Amino acid sequence: MNLQIIGKEARLASETLGKLTAEEKNRALATCAAALCERTEELLAANAEDVAAAGEKGMSEALIDRLRLTEGRIRSMAEGISQVCGLADPIGEVMSESVRPNGLKITQVRVPIGVIGIIYESRPNVTADAFALCLKTGNAVILRGGSDALRSNLAIARVLRQALSEAGLPENSVQVLTDTSRETAREFMRLREYVDLLIPRGGAGLIRTVVENSTIPVIETGTGNCHVYVDEFADEEKALAIVENAKTQRLGVCNACESLVVHRAVADSFLPKLAARLAQKEVELRGDEESRRTVPTMTPATEEDFAAEYLDRILSVKVADSLSEAIAHINRYHTKHSDCIVTENAENAKRFLREIDSAAVYVNASTRFTDGFEFGFGAEIGISTQKLHARGPMGLIALTSYKYLIEGNGQIRN
Amino acid sequence: MNLQIIGKEARLASETLGKLTAEEKNRALATCAAALCERTEELLAANAEDVAAAGEKGMSEALIDRLRLTEGRIRSMAEGISQVCGLADPIGEVMSESVRPNGLKITQVRVPIGVIGIIYESRPNVTADAFALCLKTGNAVILRGGSDALRSNLAIARVLRQALSEAGLPENSVQVLTDTSRETAREFMRLREYVDLLIPRGGAGLIRTVVENSTIPVIETGTGNCHVYVDEFADEEKALAIVENAKTQRLGVCNACESLVVHRAVADSFLPKLAARLAQKEVELRGDEESRRTVPTMTPATEEDFAAEYLDRILSVKVADSLSEAIAHINRYHTKHSDCIVTENAENAKRFLREIDSAAVYVNASTRFTDGFEFGFGAEIGISTQKLHARGPMGLIALTSYKYLIEGNGQIRN
Repeated sequence: MNLQIIGKEARLASETLGKLTAEEKNRALATCAAALCERTEELLAANAEDVAAAGEKGMSEALIDRLRLTEGRIRSMAEGISQVCGLADPIGEVMSESVRPNGLKITQVRVPIGVIGIIYESRPNVTADAFALCLKTGNAVILRGGSDALRSNLAIARVLRQALSEAGLPENSVQVLTDTSRETAREFMRLREYVDLLIPRGGAGLIRTVVENSTIPVIETGTGNCHVYVDEFADEEKALAIVENAKTQRLGVCNACESLVVHRAVADSFLPKLAARLAQKEVELRGDEESRRTVPTMTPATEEDFAAEYLDRILSVKVADSLSEAIAHINRYHTKHSDCIVTENAENAKRFLREIDSAAVYVNASTRFTDGFEFGFGAEIGISTQKLHARGPMGLIALTSYKYLIEGNGQIRN
Repeated sequence: MNLQIIGKEARLASETLGKLTAEEKNRALATCAAALCERTEELLAANAEDVAAAGEKGMSEALIDRLRLTEGRIRSMAEGISQVCGLADPIGEVMSESVRPNGLKITQVRVPIGVIGIIYESRPNVTADAFALCLKTGNAVILRGGSDALRSNLAIARVLRQALSEAGLPENSVQVLTDTSRETAREFMRLREYVDLLIPRGGAGLIRTVVENSTIPVIETGTGNCHVYVDEFADEEKALAIVENAKTQRLGVCNACESLVVHRAVADSFLPKLAARLAQKEVELRGDEESRRTVPTMTPATEEDFAAEYLDRILSVKVADSLSEAIAHINRYHTKHSDCIVTENAENAKRFLREIDSAAVYVNASTRFTDGFEFGFGAEIGISTQKLHARGPMGLIALTSYKYLIEGNGQIRN
C-alpha cells in the first residue's frame, strides 16, 4: 500500500467528480445502493470473519454488536445511500453575485472540497455513509477504518467501487486503507498534498491524536459533555422529563447529557424527585456538597466529574446560586457541544442563549436533538465542536467550499 | 511573558467583546483611531529605534521601508480603523431559521470566533489593521509580529490598549507577544485551549512553519503562483495589457502574475510583442523550448520556474497545444490563488472557470483584483488559499462562526 499513489488516485478521481451533474451522481449512488443489497451474502461473509476474530480477541459484546452486519443493517446502509440521492445537490449553487464599479462581475459559487479523509472506529456502516455524502458533494474519499472492521470495510468498498465503475465513474472515488497500523495513520494525517480535509469520527482519544498529528485541516467532531441547567423558574415536570431523556434515552452518544446544574432555589424540591426517577434507570448521581445535602445518597463529585463525558449511567450534579454562576460553570467545563436551560423566564432564556458558547444552545428541550436529521439536513457526516468552517451537525454543505468567478472585459488595476 | 496567562486574559476579554453592540464596538474603534493620531510622536520614536536597529543589522532598504512608520502611514492606520467602524457588524445576524415538525424552533446566528492569533512579519500597520477587524467582529486578538518591528508593535498596542480602557473595554482585547523567539512562537501555535484560530501572514516559509507546527486550526494565506493563460481566441491587446498589469503593477504581492501560458496558435504573434513590452519594464522571461523558438532571448525555464512565486521581475512562459493542456498545467503548478484566461470564446471561458481549482478564477481581467477591497468587502484580513472555512479574500465574515439556538417547550426525543 503506497499512500502517495492512493492520494494521487483520489485527486484524479476528484477532478472527474467535481464536473458531474446531480443526475450523474444520483444515478451512480442508486447503482451503489442496489449493489449493496444484491451482494449481501458477500458482505455478511466478510463481516463474519471480522466478528469471529473480534470474539477470539475477547472484544466486549457491546463492541462486537457495533461491528456486526446483518441483512437489516445492510439494507439500512443501502437506504441511507438512497436518501442521499434525494437531497438537493449543493454544488454549483450561486452563493453571492455582484458587479463592481469597474464592471467586474464577481460570482461566488459552491464547489467540492476535493479529497476528504475520514478516520473512524468500529462501525462498518460509516464506510457507506461517508462515501455517499462525499460522492454527492463531488468529493473523493479515503477511508481509514479500525483494524477490527477491515474485512467488512474492504468488502463494502469493493462493492461500491465495482458499482461506480459500472456507472462509468472512477472507482477511486472511494478507497479504503488496507494498512491500519498507527504509523500509516500518522503518515496519512500528513498527506497534505492530496487530502484537503480530515474528519476524525470516534472517541476523544482518536480525535486528540488526529488534532495533534495532522497537518491537513481537521474538523474536530463529537466529544460531548452536555449540560442541562434547571433554572429557578423551571417548570419542574419539563425539567424532569428533559433531564431523564437527555441522560438515558441513549447512553453512548455525544449529545447525551453528562452534567446537571440546578438553581439553589429549586434544588430541594427538584433533586429528590430526579434522584427517584433516575434510580429507576440505574443512573448514578455524583454531586457537589450542596446537592448532597439534599440527596445524601449521591456519590461525592470530583473536579474530573464536572469535565467528564461518561457515555454511561452516571450524571454529575452541581447546585448554583445564580444564573451567572451556572453559565460560568458550564462555559468552564463543557465541550461546546450542546447545553440546555429549562426555564419559563424569557429573560433568563435569552441570556443563556447568548452567553453559552456551544454549537447548540437549547431552551426547554432535550440535548439529544443535536443531530443532522433532527435539524432537517437530511444527512450528517458528524457533529463539529470547533468553530471553523462548520459548527454543530454537519450536512452536505459542510463538505463543500466555494470559489470566486470574476468576469471582465480587459480590466487592469491602477 | 507567560503564554498561559496571555491566553486566559484573551479568553476573558473575548467573553466581554462577544456581548457588545455594534455601537459600543464602533465607539471604542473611534477612540483608538483618534489615539493613534494624537500619539504620533510616541509611535514615531519607537519606530525610529526599530529602524535604527535594522540599519545596523544591514537590513535591505526595501525591507526597512516596509518597517518604517511616517506621519502619513500612522494617519492611514487610523483611517483604516475608521473605515472598519463604517462596515456593517455581522455579529448577531440570523443566517437561517426553521421550525421543525416537532415544534422546535432552530435559529442559526453569527457569533465571534473567540480568540484569534496572528503571526506576521515586518509591517507594523498589520498590528492596527488586524486589531480593528478582530474587535469589530467581537474577537480578542493575540499578535506575534516580527522581532524587527517589536518596539513599533508594542507602541501601537500600548496606544490601542489605553484607548480601549478609556472606552470601557478590556485592554486585553489586544495583546502583543514581547518574546519573539522561535520557541515561544511554537508554544503559541499549540495554545489550543485559549486560541481558536491562527492566521499566518507572510512569506511561504512562515506559513509552512505554522501549518506544520500548529495544533490550533490555521487558515493558510497568501502564497500566489498566479497564471495568465492567453487562449487562441484572445484579444491580443487585452492580453498584453492584462499580462503587463498582472506582472508589473506591483511586484511583491501574492496576486501578481508569475506564470504565463500561451496557446500555440497565437504564440508567434503574441510572444514577441509581449517580450518587447515587458523588456521596457526589465522583466526577465523564462520560457520552455517552444516559447524560446519564438523569442530566443528568453532564459530556459526549469521545472522549478513553473512552480515559482518570484515576487520579482521574472515571468515563466509555457506554450500549450490546447485549452486542456493549459488547464492541466495550471492545476498542476498553481497555488490555487488566482488564475486568468484571456479569451473572446465563451465556451472556453466557461470551461476555464469551471475546471481551474483556484480561489479566484478570472476571464479577461488582471489577477491583481484578488483583494478584499476590490471585491467590495471593505476590509481584508488576508487571502486564504485553502478550502476550509474561508477561500480567497477574507473580510469580516471570515472572522466569525455561528451557533444554533433551539427553542422548545419541553420536547424530548423518542
